[in-house]
Amino acid sequence: MKVLFLGDIVGRAGRDAVVAELPRLRDQLGLDFVVVNGENAAHGFGISPKICDELFEVGVDVITGGNHSWDRAEILTYIDEEPRLLRPANFPPGTPGKGTGVYESRGGHRVLVINVMCRLFMESLDNPFEALDRALPEGVPFDAGMDFVLVDMHGEATSEKYGIGHFSDGRASLVVGTHTHVPTGDAHILENGTAYQTDAGMCGDYDSIIGMDKDAALSRFLGHLPKPRLSPAEGEATVCGTVVETDPKTGLAVSVQPLRIGGKLARAWPSA
Amino acid sequence: MKVLFLGDIVGRAGRDAVVAELPRLRDQLGLDFVVVNGENAAHGFGISPKICDELFEVGVDVITGGNHSWDRAEILTYIDEEPRLLRPANFPPGTPGKGTGVYESRGGHRVLVINVMCRLFMESLDNPFEALDRALPEGVPFDAGMDFVLVDMHGEATSEKYGIGHFSDGRASLVVGTHTHVPTGDAHILENGTAYQTDAGMCGDYDSIIGMDKDAALSRFLGHLPKPRLSPAEGEATVCGTVVETDPKTGLAVSVQPLRIGGKLARAWPSA
Amino acid sequence: MKVLFLGDIVGRAGRDAVVAELPRLRDQLGLDFVVVNGENAAHGFGISPKICDELFEVGVDVITGGNHSWDRAEILTYIDEEPRLLRPANFPPGTPGKGTGVYESRGGHRVLVINVMCRLFMESLDNPFEALDRALPEGVPFDAGMDFVLVDMHGEATSEKYGIGHFSDGRASLVVGTHTHVPTGDAHILENGTAYQTDAGMCGDYDSIIGMDKDAALSRFLGHLPKPRLSPAEGEATVCGTVVETDPKTGLAVSVQPLRIGGKLARAWPSA
Amino acid sequence: MKVLFLGDIVGRAGRDAVVAELPRLRDQLGLDFVVVNGENAAHGFGISPKICDELFEVGVDVITGGNHSWDRAEILTYIDEEPRLLRPANFPPGTPGKGTGVYESRGGHRVLVINVMCRLFMESLDNPFEALDRALPEGVPFDAGMDFVLVDMHGEATSEKYGIGHFSDGRASLVVGTHTHVPTGDAHILENGTAYQTDAGMCGDYDSIIGMDKDAALSRFLGHLPKPRLSPAEGEATVCGTVVETDPKTGLAVSVQPLRIGGKLARAWPSA
Ligand SMILES: [Fe+2]
Ligand SMILES: [Fe+2]
Ligand SMILES: [Fe+2]
Ligand SMILES: [Fe+2]
Ligand SMILES: [Fe+2]
Ligand SMILES: [Fe+2]
Ligand SMILES: [Fe+2]
Ligand SMILES: [Fe+2]
Repeated sequence: MKVLFLGDIVGRAGRDAVVAELPRLRDQLGLDFVVVNGENAAHGFGISPKICDELFEVGVDVITGGNHSWDRAEILTYIDEEPRLLRPANFPPGTPGKGTGVYESRGGHRVLVINVMCRLFMESLDNPFEALDRALPEGVPFDAGMDFVLVDMHGEATSEKYGIGHFSDGRASLVVGTHTHVPTGDAHILENGTAYQTDAGMCGDYDSIIGMDKDAALSRFLGHLPKPRLSPAEGEATVCGTVVETDPKTGLAVSVQPLRIGGKLARAWPSA
Repeated sequence: MKVLFLGDIVGRAGRDAVVAELPRLRDQLGLDFVVVNGENAAHGFGISPKICDELFEVGVDVITGGNHSWDRAEILTYIDEEPRLLRPANFPPGTPGKGTGVYESRGGHRVLVINVMCRLFMESLDNPFEALDRALPEGVPFDAGMDFVLVDMHGEATSEKYGIGHFSDGRASLVVGTHTHVPTGDAHILENGTAYQTDAGMCGDYDSIIGMDKDAALSRFLGHLPKPRLSPAEGEATVCGTVVETDPKTGLAVSVQPLRIGGKLARAWPSA
Repeated sequence: MKVLFLGDIVGRAGRDAVVAELPRLRDQLGLDFVVVNGENAAHGFGISPKICDELFEVGVDVITGGNHSWDRAEILTYIDEEPRLLRPANFPPGTPGKGTGVYESRGGHRVLVINVMCRLFMESLDNPFEALDRALPEGVPFDAGMDFVLVDMHGEATSEKYGIGHFSDGRASLVVGTHTHVPTGDAHILENGTAYQTDAGMCGDYDSIIGMDKDAALSRFLGHLPKPRLSPAEGEATVCGTVVETDPKTGLAVSVQPLRIGGKLARAWPSA
Repeated sequence: MKVLFLGDIVGRAGRDAVVAELPRLRDQLGLDFVVVNGENAAHGFGISPKICDELFEVGVDVITGGNHSWDRAEILTYIDEEPRLLRPANFPPGTPGKGTGVYESRGGHRVLVINVMCRLFMESLDNPFEALDRALPEGVPFDAGMDFVLVDMHGEATSEKYGIGHFSDGRASLVVGTHTHVPTGDAHILENGTAYQTDAGMCGDYDSIIGMDKDAALSRFLGHLPKPRLSPAEGEATVCGTVVETDPKTGLAVSVQPLRIGGKLARAWPSA
């Protein structure tokens, strides 16, 4: 089957681009399932129920989160009623929502989505490797009845992300990173068949500082006072993601390719 | 003019690949100048005078550094005698070596190379923005008598790196990152003509954890004891870098394209 | 001369205690000069012009700051008109206010106050050691015409604070820390005559988490959602500080003793 | 019962002082039980079986650890055979040794010792609050058959340490911190009867940077190269700790007082 993952959607520019492109992408690429990270969809900070609905409507199957999952308080109740919205699985026990879900695609494929958050240079959390070990199939996806197993690892450090990739290798179809808001050029298939990309990149305006207005964000780095508030850059967004095709006999990857369309970045379109 | 920058060379695998490929690359790509980051060239930690010589011999013009610059003690005296070896410019006053240099290429071009290190999630250092402000031309490279101005920003956080990019925009030909050991897919020309890529990626074996043996590095993330020592992965390296062409009238960029050859990653070859 | 330094004043409880105790303390202890850290005086976050005035009125001579100096925007203009309010000296160039000041006490003593901020586990800043080196006398305070030289080092890590202590030893009368909101029991005179205490402790309610309501702050550590807002604990505050007497011939310390009165902590009163 | 806790023993100076003082202290103070943190006992880094034996011989009942627990590889097997040596309870599953132990004193008292490590500004670990919740009695120590429950929280941030204090309040006799190597002056009994001190302070030479040679450690802060190796300062150590007396009917605290003897710091001797 063929799955598209899109990285952190940032603000209106990111949402507008995803809404405009996704229906066409599903068609042209023959996508069976679409997962997006939505932690910055609401003006850069968090996501609202209304935005979730908007994304589901244009063909998003599952929305993942990260350190900004709770920036909007109304999401704390919504997430318990909407199984298609995930938050990192290694948040402490008692946290609203869930970090994993099994979904059936329109075409009848079974997809396991796992959202974990890294710890290096981030806030204190439960061990993401233990959370993964509990959530991943013991063998290849197919042996656990899954057509696709997708891991969104929301994290900063490339070392920890490669650690999660190798740890999951052979048990997931795709391990893909989010949070840095920059797509990496290292999409490849690991030794045991898992597709891997350190970061999918954001869906947002790259004429910015990771999606936020560049003058305000730069001013904060320079220490200028008073510190300006950050708001999303509003130029045309680049839609950034990863496309993976699997072998139906195993659920492991046969190809992984970056997708980048629109905005400032060089176009990347998966070859057939 | 046309310049190639290669990211962190990691261990023997990385060195062997660079030594094998560089002469051919200079030719095929018509390169005028080559800069590499060498902070991990000596078994993953630091660089030795002998390795510097080896790199200069195959066509490297300048070697930059980072947090691992001093891992080999013998480099502390060598660097004061070898102007082609740089370390970050924002190390504290009194540090051996220099963080900037002006070089003349074989073809007679004048090139300014600046090496700075970021601070977010890294050790305490002097302000990289101030160091850059002192080192960069006030206007476009040409106005300062330079054909090319290259900034190697050695850093972790994508936000700080984009901050440095925009801060330098219009005053440098290329601002390119190192340190994460993962190439980013965001090479593009900023608003005022500076080519930018968040990270050039490493020259090393990607079947690894950022160039180091994956079992040992993963074991450390899992907390297994005793903690194994890290040593470089020894499979075939991918040579990762960035190729920039400039407008001779300004020294600003007319094109920026990633280069990735060999090893595990998908090949990227600059189009003409 | 005899100088009292009081650590971070936290909220109303801290202010009320300082206002109530200080006039009596000046008298009973025969104080010549009083410096307080005020970065948390306004409901735990920042300080207002009105609170500064209130403190000056009850006998505070100088107010220092830290990472919370700018939490109230109105202070950015006030600080340029009020030389008795300092902020860390190693904030980047162009920052409003000043990090050092020379003051004359009512009794005609000359006092140099220096405020620096540490970097370990804190935000990126200019080098505090360089800032200190510029601000401190080259020799003992008396040689520079000072009766007292006070350094408030606002910082987290005990190692960096001891580093600042030894770096300043012989050039300051007192080096005292703030920011952790916990008084340390290590007040002593360093080898070359400088009084030192790693942290003065806060002026606030200790039945709390460093001055803030304990239920809310603990809930945040436990990861409970939604994250409650922090507000200062409102029980009786302990006034925490350091009392130093100097040798008039050098300006170096002859005694350093902790002061702790009121609230939950064991009383400490300087012996004569 | 009466219990003494001594903070991080640093190097030979710290060991010598503890060995010299402890027998006398047991006597003079009428101690029933003694716990020390030994993570820096072996030349500043880790602890050896031989040093453990030496400490047990002079009257130490239990030794706790921290981030330096594993600096000496030989301890990894020793710890599984020596129940009196603990390491933090919230190290990941599979780690050698244990983080809690129940001991019987010579006088027949039952003592539960729990060692946890904080996370703020430290390495990634399992949740210390969860580890504590599992290890602490549900009610007061006596209800769980314990005469004394001691928590050594090895940590950096005062906020997290106060969080652990309040979290354990009423379920422990003493919650005391280690790791900063500086004694705090905030020993007091929390609302529900648990004695608390943010840090016990080190047993080591305070004419130093947290126990290490001050010139070498300062040089590292200044960025001087080559970075000198750190070794323990060798002047007379101050023995720093906390003395707690409990109500036999509950196991909660009736008094908590700091102990500081010898070396540079002002003497603190528990009143009767
Ligand atoms: Fe994000
Ligand atoms: Fe994020
Ligand atoms: Fe590197
Ligand atoms: Fe690096
Ligand atoms: Fe404070
Ligand atoms: Fe502070
Ligand atoms: Fe320690
Ligand atoms: Fe420690």
